[in-house]
Order: sequence, then structure tokens, then C-alpha cells
Amino acid sequence: MTPIRIESNSDTIFAPATIPGTGAISLIRISGPDALTVTDKIVKFSSGDCISSKGFEIKYGTISKWDGSSEVMIDEVLVSVFRAPKSYTGENSTEISCHASQVIVNEILKLLNNAGGRPAEPGEFTKRAFLNGKMDLAQAEAVADVISSSSEAALKIAQNQLKGGLSGEMKELRKKISDLASLLELELDFSEEDVEFADRKKLLGVVDESIAFIEKVKSTFSHGNALKNGIPVAIVGATNTGKSTLMNRLVGEDRSIVSDIEGTTRDTVEETMTVDGMLFRFIDTAGLRSTDEYVENLGIERSISSVKKASVVLCILDITRPFEESSREFETILDSCSFDGKTIGVILNKCDKLSENNDELSSNNFVIRLNEFVLSAINKRFSHIDAINGFFVSKISAKEGNGVLELLTMLSESQKQLTEKSTNGSFSMLTNVRHYNALSRSSDALHRVKDDICTGVSIDMTAQDLRDALYYIGSITGEITNDEILQSIFSNFCIGK
Amino acid sequence: MTPIRIESNSDTIFAPATIPGTGAISLIRISGPDALTVTDKIVKFSSGDCISSKGFEIKYGTISKWDGSSEVMIDEVLVSVFRAPKSYTGENSTEISCHASQVIVNEILKLLNNAGGRPAEPGEFTKRAFLNGKMDLAQAEAVADVISSSSEAALKIAQNQLKGGLSGEMKELRKKISDLASLLELELDFSEEDVEFADRKKLLGVVDESIAFIEKVKSTFSHGNALKNGIPVAIVGATNTGKSTLMNRLVGEDRSIVSDIEGTTRDTVEETMTVDGMLFRFIDTAGLRSTDEYVENLGIERSISSVKKASVVLCILDITRPFEESSREFETILDSCSFDGKTIGVILNKCDKLSENNDELSSNNFVIRLNEFVLSAINKRFSHIDAINGFFVSKISAKEGNGVLELLTMLSESQKQLTEKSTNGSFSMLTNVRHYNALSRSSDALHRVKDDICTGVSIDMTAQDLRDALYYIGSITGEITNDEILQSIFSNFCIGK
Repeated sequence: MTPIRIESNSDTIFAPATIPGTGAISLIRISGPDALTVTDKIVKFSSGDCISSKGFEIKYGTISKWDGSSEVMIDEVLVSVFRAPKSYTGENSTEISCHASQVIVNEILKLLNNAGGRPAEPGEFTKRAFLNGKMDLAQAEAVADVISSSSEAALKIAQNQLKGGLSGEMKELRKKISDLASLLELELDFSEEDVEFADRKKLLGVVDESIAFIEKVKSTFSHGNALKNGIPVAIVGATNTGKSTLMNRLVGEDRSIVSDIEGTTRDTVEETMTVDGMLFRFIDTAGLRSTDEYVENLGIERSISSVKKASVVLCILDITRPFEESSREFETILDSCSFDGKTIGVILNKCDKLSENNDELSSNNFVIRLNEFVLSAINKRFSHIDAINGFFVSKISAKEGNGVLELLTMLSESQKQLTEKSTNGSFSMLTNVRHYNALSRSSDALHRVKDDICTGVSIDMTAQDLRDALYYIGSITGEITNDEILQSIFSNFCIGK
Repeated sequence: MTPIRIESNSDTIFAPATIPGTGAISLIRISGPDALTVTDKIVKFSSGDCISSKGFEIKYGTISKWDGSSEVMIDEVLVSVFRAPKSYTGENSTEISCHASQVIVNEILKLLNNAGGRPAEPGEFTKRAFLNGKMDLAQAEAVADVISSSSEAALKIAQNQLKGGLSGEMKELRKKISDLASLLELELDFSEEDVEFADRKKLLGVVDESIAFIEKVKSTFSHGNALKNGIPVAIVGATNTGKSTLMNRLVGEDRSIVSDIEGTTRDTVEETMTVDGMLFRFIDTAGLRSTDEYVENLGIERSISSVKKASVVLCILDITRPFEESSREFETILDSCSFDGKTIGVILNKCDKLSENNDELSSNNFVIRLNEFVLSAINKRFSHIDAINGFFVSKISAKEGNGVLELLTMLSESQKQLTEKSTNGSFSMLTNVRHYNALSRSSDALHRVKDDICTGVSIDMTAQDLRDALYYIGSITGEITNDEILQSIFSNFCIGK
């Protein structure tokens, strides 16, 4: 199977690479075989022109238009010149830097159009970079992720992918399976002679290794996706334990309505916050309690659904309540859904009441008792150490702010450990659902290969299943691709990229 | 009087020149004596460095940071290098082009700060360009106008000012008055000998010329300001003549609520639209009628205030109404305020009713009669031809759209003629209130000079008044300035310019 390459377009495209009307400078990109002459047509340079530039040069000039009676200056500009293949797209290209006015940018775009350029489609510059072999498909997709990265952690994953981290691993995997496939194809050629070039046991071993590797990479998706889009943290607990107070304390504003009335929060309220380079999405939920109130019950349903979707669940307990009540509340939360792969944070709230209270010792004893209960409840429920990602207990006063910084540190540490654990410090993290699906299909095909070998079906079938597995892995980096896939990938890009 | 130059700052500043998080590319500007070394500190170039670049060159490199345990790549970048004095600011400077992610830009800004740079204040790059003699003050102010220009007309004025159009005229005026002042200063030196170097009659002549010139330039302000910020067009008329229907027809959406109920529009509704390169601000107003309705009366007050502020007043008459009613309505509008310098458009609306109606001829006759009445009413009222800017009559159907394009053409033509008339095709248009005020003060001082000469007060006084006139003209281009003025001008710029 030879990789399919789609022909690069032969026309010259242009688009603004910044949003005009904002900032001080606007950039307009031009790329294609005629990029230099098209630019020369519309810019009057103080000396020389783009076509005679050696590239990686900046030229000063003015852009004017004829308004029917006189030459009207549109702007003074700086033009950066790049010559193929030493450019982003691999084609001849220029970047016009002008004042950031919508009117100026529009006039320049009109002139470029008249000079023979064509407005670029979303992502078309990066698509050309891919078609011209400047980057593979996974790297091209990483460009969009780099631009939209909302935290240092997300940026780190995207930059690793852009540098070819994921691509390298996929190529290695493909090579391994490809070698197997070659052996099987060889057997097919000599099928009448009934020779076995590929040792079936060795073959099974390699297939198992590959499946294990794919599953390991796939397992990074949930955390990788959370790092990319923000780690969902559900704040749950019984009514009036201080969930909304904690939310407001975290995001530093009156985001959730706080009152002494049980059942104040009904909608789930969501706010993002960056902690230690990671984006967290805190979700304040309705307090869990038995109620006949229709709207409040809807809110409680949403709380449970938030817990299901969350990576971290912060269970708030009010330490001023009787031990039996708090322990029951905690068990209710633990019973509400599966905690597989989640981090559980037990927040003992209202610690400010401890010092107010004269019988401090007994309160502290209470905390110790509750702590022990929580530990045993968790140990009882999650006997398999890997079932939950991790767990911590944090003593705070949401009202006064005590312990909240420590809580955030525990939160970010738990996610850093998860990053360590899932990448094993050595391989890439998956964040793209297209890659996830491709790996799933590849894994399915490899499972079929295993079945084929064990049940001893014809080599034809086994070879076809191996080819399927290769196809899906190749689709990640774009060694195998088609126009439809490219269209759907690049149409999600912004104009000018 | 020697021009005051404020020392340029000696530190190195940086700021984003685009709004990160939008578009494909972000630019960060660095300027100052250490711009090249500061950039070299944070970027790892594939070859060479900024300090050894000859300028007007682009260099490729990567920016990384140490996250405590390893080197983390922030982005691949292109760096444009400019060497003093061949740069925007006249200083050594660089522009870092990176992916348009907020996280990346923030990381780079942090690194620049650690490398010895300082975040720039708003407009500080342009302020340095001024202080380094790359442009005068009126030109520096034009930079902000160029960026914010919302129409071709506004851009043209701003570009003319940026190229030094206004500055040139001010310099010529200053030279003329300065020559006079020199003669008077000479007389002061020889004051004991009672000689008259300056012929008083000739002196008066030059002062009169200068005042006339200043008044001419000042008179362009109202139209220039309208071109810059949008030409206000008030749509007025009696209730239910179709003002809101016309508004919606013009801006192509349901902007104003339309109903058959008299007094539907109360708030003045405003929408902008570009016609023939000029920005118009259409203001739909409450219908003028006698009413006891409190809110509606407030609306009518606002209508009259809109007419007062407008450059163009579109008076809508409903041709299906009795002639006497329409003529009374029109006179009511004319009586509502002074129309000095305004353009009046008389809109005969509901022309679709003409063809529906069998007795078409009589309707047409009615239009002709109304037209004649309008003409005579305007002639009677505005006997001095320059009192109003111009006037046109337009027959339309706001409902069906007939005649609306022609109406827009008449509208834009009226404003083009006004531009011609006010600039006389030869000089700059004033758009900046600071310049307007400086010219007013200069004119006042020149009037005092006239008085001084006519009343024969001491030469000391006359010379001082001439110096005042010079001072204010010089303040426009910044030949004379102080830190406070600079502060107030540049603080209105955006960051990065």
C-alpha cells in the first residue's frame, strides 16, 4: 500500500493572519507560485522587489490605489519575503505588515484579489504545508492545538505533537506491524509451497505488544483531553456544606449565589482557573438531599451527572455537623456513580468554627475520626489500587480562605502525578478524538489478526486485517489520507493559518 | 524660541502588537538600545543572532523555558530585526512572530521581562518615534487615527496627516508669522532708536491672511470630524411617515420596531453604514406630533436634539397625506432648530401607493406641488446660499425599496461636495479636537496682535501676542510641547503601538 499524496494547489492564496481592528499591526499572508509577483504588483517598494529578494528579508514600501481621479495611499507597509522551500507552506510566500485597521486590510485584500490571488480557505496555509511535506497530518493538527492552547500543560502536549512526538511513536508502531505484514505477504506469494516465513508464536507476540502499546497510548486520552480542554472538577456535597462559598473563594468573585437557605444552587455553575500551568474547570453543583422540590431535584440530577463527567470530585463535608450525618453524606456521594480513574478530594469545611469553639480538642478529635472513616470507606470500596487515580483530604475554611491554597496545591499535584503515570514520562499524550478513533480501529484489526492466527484462517484474511491495522495508524500522520479527511480537518482551522 | 525636545527613554520596552488569542499569528515588539541582545537572550536561533544582523532581516529560532526539571519549548518563532535608525521607533528593534496563543505570548512576555526588558506603556513605540524625530506630533496622532479609521474617507484624512499634510501647512503658517515676529523682535532690540522695521500695514495684512487661513482650516473640523467618526444623519418626520421602515431598509435588518401605531419609536435608534467609502450614522427618531404621552414626549425631545447634532437631516413626508398636512409637518421640522451648515434631504415616501392608485396623475401632481412648496420654503428660509450645505429631494418607497439606492447616492454626493468645498481641493482637513483648540487660541492671539497694532500699544505686548500665536501653532506639530501633553496624547493609544 503506497501512501496517497494529493497534489498541492497551484494557485496563489492570501488571508489576514491577525484579526484586523484589534492591536497595532495587522498581518496578511500570501502563498503560492505567484506570491512574489502578486505582492510586487500591489506594493511600491523603496528599492528592489520581492521577486529578486533572496528570502528571509524585509522590504519597505507603500500600497496605493487609483480611486478614479487620483492615486490614494492606503498604507505604508513592511513585507517579509520567503522563498520556496524555506517558508511555512514550502511555497514562495510573503507577509504584509500594515496598520491594524479594518479598512486598510480590506483594501489590501481587494488589491491582492485583483492582482491574481485568491482568498484562502480556513487552514489552507497549513494544508499546503502538509501537502508540500513540511509536516505530517498529526503535526498539522497540532498547529491548531498550539494556537488554541489555554494552559501551559495543553501547550506542552500540543508542542510535543507539533515537534513530531506522537508521529514518531506512530511511525515506529507502523514499522513493527509493517515488517510482519511483509512476511505474511511473502507467504502469500509462495502460498502454493506451504512455507511459513513468519513464526506464528513470534507473530502473536508482536501483535500482543502492539495492542498493549496502542491501549497504553489510548489510555492517555481521557487525561490528555482534560488537560487540553480544562480538567473538570465537580464540587459536590450535602446542602449547605459551603460548596458555593468554596467556588467563589476559588474564582475570586461572586460567581455562585450563596445563602443559608438549603437548595440555593440549582444550575451547575462553571468557572475556569489556571493552577500551576493547568486549566481547571470548577463545577459548583446543587447540594445532594432528599427534596420534593421539582427544580431542585433536576439540579441534583445534574450534580450526579457532573460527578460522572468529572476528573476530580471534591466532596465537601461540614465539620460542624454530627459525625453520623457527615459519614452518611460521604457514602451517598461515593454511591452516586463509579469513581474509576477519578481523583477524590475530601474537603473538611468550616474549620474556622474550630477556633471559635471552646471545645477545640473535641472538634479536632472529630476531624481525626472523620478522616479515619473517610480513609476506611475509600479503602473498603476501592480495593484495587488503580481503580481511583488518587485521593487526598484537605481541611479548609471556604469562608475565611484558610487551607484553600494548600487544597489547590494538592489538586494540581494529583494531576501532575496522573500525567507522570499515564505517559510514564516517556511517550506522547493523546488529545485528538480522530487519533483516538483511529487507534481504536487499529486495535480492533489487530485483535482480529490474533483470532485469525489462533483459529488458523487463510493467510489472505490475516494479511488483510494487518493491512487494516496499518491503514488506521497511517491515517494519523497522514501517510494514508483522502481529500474528505483533509477537508474535515482543515475546515476547523482559523482563516490565515 | 527653540523647540523643546524631551529625552528619549534609554531602556528597552516590549509589548504585543496584536491581540493574542485571535487569528493565526501574534506579534511581539521590542524596542530600545538593548532590543537586539534582549531578543538574543530568549531566542535560540538556527544560525547567527540579532546583534550581528545587518537589519531588515528575518531569523528563525525557538523559544524555550526551564520549568524546573527540563527545557520546555514554548514556540518556534520568526524574528524580524531592525537596526537604529532604520526602524519605526528609530531605535534598535525586533518583532517576534509566534503562534497566536495567549499562553505562548504570556510566556514570551515573561521571558522578555526577565531578560531586562520593560512592558511598554500605551503608545510608547510611537512616542519614541516622535522623540527620535521619526515623525512630528500631528503625524504621531495620525497613527492612532489610521488604525481606528472606520471608512475610506476617514483613512484618507488620517493618511494625509500621517504623510505630513497638515504638518506642512502648519509649518508654512508658522514660518510666515515667525518672520513677522523676527522683525518685531529686531525693533525691540533697537527700541530706543524708534525705527520701524516692520511696515504696520504689511504686518496687518499678513496677520489678516493668517487669521483667514486658520479660520478656513478650522471650518473643516465639523465635516472632518463627521467623516472620521461617521456622518450623523437624522431621520425625522411626523408619526407614521415610515421613518423606521426607511431605517430598516437602509441597514437591511429589523433594527427599528415598525408598526401602524403612531408613536412606536421612542428611543433614538442608531446604525452605521458605509456608503461610497464614507461612514454614515443613521439615527431613527420618534415621530414629531403633539402628544400627552410622557415617554413619547421625551422621545420627541430627543428627536429635536438629534436634528441639532446631525450633519444631514432626512425629512420624511408621506405623499398619501393631504398637501396641507405634509407642508405643515415640513415647516415644523424646519422650525425645530437652526440648519446652518447642514444638508437637508426631503424624502417623499410611500411612492408605491402611486401605482396602486388609479388616479395616478393627480398623485403625481401632488408630488410636484409638494416639491415646489419645499423648494420655496427652503428658499424663503435660507436666503444666504451658504447657510445650509445643500439640499435634495428624493422620491422613494421605503417599504418596497424603490429609490433608496438613488437616495444613498444623493446622500454621498452631498458629502463629497462638502469635502470639496471645505478643503477647496487643496488643504488638509481637521479632525483632532486638540488641533482645533490650538488653532482657536492661535487665532485669538492674532486678533490681539491686530488690536495691539491698531491701538498702538507697546511693541513688547505685540511681540508677546505673536509669540503666543506661534506657540499654539507649534504645539500642533510638537515643535513646542511638554511632558504633560505627550502623556495625554499617547495614553490614548493602544498597547504595542
